[in-house]
Amino acid sequence: MQTAAAVADFRTYPKLCDLADAQVLDDQIRVQWADGRVSPFHHQWLRDNCPCTHCVYSVTREQVLEIVDVDENLSAISARIDQGFLSVQWHGGHHSQYDPGWLRAHAYDEESRAERRAAKPTSRLWDNTFELPIFDYAAVMQDPEALLQWLLALRDSGLTQMRGVPTESGSLAPIAQRISFIRESNFGVLFNVQSKADADSNAYTAFNLPLHSDLPTRELQPGLQFLHCLVNDADGGESIFVDGFAIANALREEDPEAFRALCEIPVEFRNKDRHSDYRRLAPIIALDALGDVAEIRMANFLRGPFETSVAQMPLLYRAYRRFIAMTREARFRLVKRLNPGELWCFDNRRTLHARNAFDPTSGARHFQGCYIDRDELLSRIFVLQR
Amino acid sequence: MQTAAAVADFRTYPKLCDLADAQVLDDQIRVQWADGRVSPFHHQWLRDNCPCTHCVYSVTREQVLEIVDVDENLSAISARIDQGFLSVQWHGGHHSQYDPGWLRAHAYDEESRAERRAAKPTSRLWDNTFELPIFDYAAVMQDPEALLQWLLALRDSGLTQMRGVPTESGSLAPIAQRISFIRESNFGVLFNVQSKADADSNAYTAFNLPLHSDLPTRELQPGLQFLHCLVNDADGGESIFVDGFAIANALREEDPEAFRALCEIPVEFRNKDRHSDYRRLAPIIALDALGDVAEIRMANFLRGPFETSVAQMPLLYRAYRRFIAMTREARFRLVKRLNPGELWCFDNRRTLHARNAFDPTSGARHFQGCYIDRDELLSRIFVLQR
Repeated sequence: MQTAAAVADFRTYPKLCDLADAQVLDDQIRVQWADGRVSPFHHQWLRDNCPCTHCVYSVTREQVLEIVDVDENLSAISARIDQGFLSVQWHGGHHSQYDPGWLRAHAYDEESRAERRAAKPTSRLWDNTFELPIFDYAAVMQDPEALLQWLLALRDSGLTQMRGVPTESGSLAPIAQRISFIRESNFGVLFNVQSKADADSNAYTAFNLPLHSDLPTRELQPGLQFLHCLVNDADGGESIFVDGFAIANALREEDPEAFRALCEIPVEFRNKDRHSDYRRLAPIIALDALGDVAEIRMANFLRGPFETSVAQMPLLYRAYRRFIAMTREARFRLVKRLNPGELWCFDNRRTLHARNAFDPTSGARHFQGCYIDRDELLSRIFVLQR
Repeated sequence: MQTAAAVADFRTYPKLCDLADAQVLDDQIRVQWADGRVSPFHHQWLRDNCPCTHCVYSVTREQVLEIVDVDENLSAISARIDQGFLSVQWHGGHHSQYDPGWLRAHAYDEESRAERRAAKPTSRLWDNTFELPIFDYAAVMQDPEALLQWLLALRDSGLTQMRGVPTESGSLAPIAQRISFIRESNFGVLFNVQSKADADSNAYTAFNLPLHSDLPTRELQPGLQFLHCLVNDADGGESIFVDGFAIANALREEDPEAFRALCEIPVEFRNKDRHSDYRRLAPIIALDALGDVAEIRMANFLRGPFETSVAQMPLLYRAYRRFIAMTREARFRLVKRLNPGELWCFDNRRTLHARNAFDPTSGARHFQGCYIDRDELLSRIFVLQR
């Protein structure tokens, strides 16, 4: 009977605790674990999650059953522990059995839910004392464990450097593809960061660029940004980074009213040229469901005119000026020149980046960049951790 | 002096009304228009939006000035109407002038803001009586006006058909590229919808697929989905569509508690195979800032086990069952067989799509699909409307 284990996933769920008892109640089965925890599971929930090959297509491990096709008052005839599995006989004839590892991982009693919330990865905030995590190109390209360590650093710290990268044009693509496919934008798949006469973005000039996220003009800002240095013989052009989450949290402490204004008043970002016209209205700071800072959207050179009520306009300017002023404070800023064969990879929705002006007459400067979404980062981490 | 008109945009802003008067107050300039409207503009706002070539780089039309570099108590020495423009002399020496068309389009008095809100495009809801907007391939490929009409139908109705499309593999790409680049996913750039033995999604079987959005497992579901029919000799496999916004609005009317549950309780969607493991937790119905239904996220076969409190679980099941039951009601459903040389293009975040089971032994069936994001749709509309 153990062959009928959960097929609705490609993950495995190690058994953390034995099932001890199961009791059929009116609308639920009350499961007791060997460590004393009690997990109620509603009949609907259990029937919905039956992992048998009638309910789940074993090739794709996707559900075929639709719960709406089951009586909404369905109840169990019996529930028992059978060779370690929870075994349920339903009225009407269907039979289900549930792997104890899977069941514990999906239990929704308060203790189980709190345990899972506590196990969620959290951001490690940093300032100008940050010890930059540096990774080796050859190791990341060959060793899945080195790849995983790099991706975890990206997820949790949001800023990494890689060294030993070839300096041929296009070398960036296979590195990004260690994670997954590259996210294209109106600037292409791999974009060349060089000073150009016909620039369609200030990024393609020799100007200084203030601290910003890329493509705040889109509904979903790219999750990861790569910047790969091929040539850097020009004077100036140092890279600057700040942890946008650290700044937002400091603002929250130091000026709660300004913080709230940046969370609540949407700002339009615009990216327009002769061929495209992107506009996106969104607050500069986004919070997650728990109220924690989850995203920063910021690029002064892509910002449209503020639009809010006349009464709120002075507050919005005060808050915006304060945030920008904080990005300029030394306590937050990491300043570093990128050399040929090195690349930056960072969380574009958290880590703001800037560039000092450079002198294009003093020597060549050529970076290549690309984007990958957070979905791909997390998927690769999950697969490597299986 | 008129040569110094707004350069911070590629759009043009026709003059809708003459400037009549400008009066310098403490922290703002009070502009009066010829039609009597009064628009206050704060000094900070006006200085921030100075369109001169010192403040905006004329090639990219992106801002170079950062407002934080201007005194936060900056005020105007004088403001006057000069050859139709608003001309402002600032303390400290800078001079700005503003085009009246641009200024009216960005005024933030209550009347101007309400006018702009009222002019925003709104969704036209539909049911089974919907007169499907059908577009001609040749016209869309050649005529910018036909292209624009198609895109407006997509934006406002969320479901269109195109006919006269070549049936060679890959013919879909240039159609999508009339809008912009194609959004890649883990299923590729163009994906083949065919029954496959080694399917990595139930979409690639001959099963019926219940009404769903594609890639609800991602943070941002694709905006537009294309499905192009190359061959359709198999029995069955009819396409079914419902307007998810219409169903959500009906649910809101008929069962407000269920509606709220689907807006508030997040559900995990999962898309996993041997190479990827996507998980996304989000509510099934998302509202916009004004409380209107803005997005539907739904695919029963990609849904993970519900996780909410024991107390809320019965409500979530009741609401979910009700929503699914509504997608099966005849009043909402459009059922149509797609023929070779035809394609569906629809708003994947609004219009749910389904497929009846087909019999792969009765004949070949081959569709190709791809995605484009809402950002690209809106950008192309804006450029065509310039």
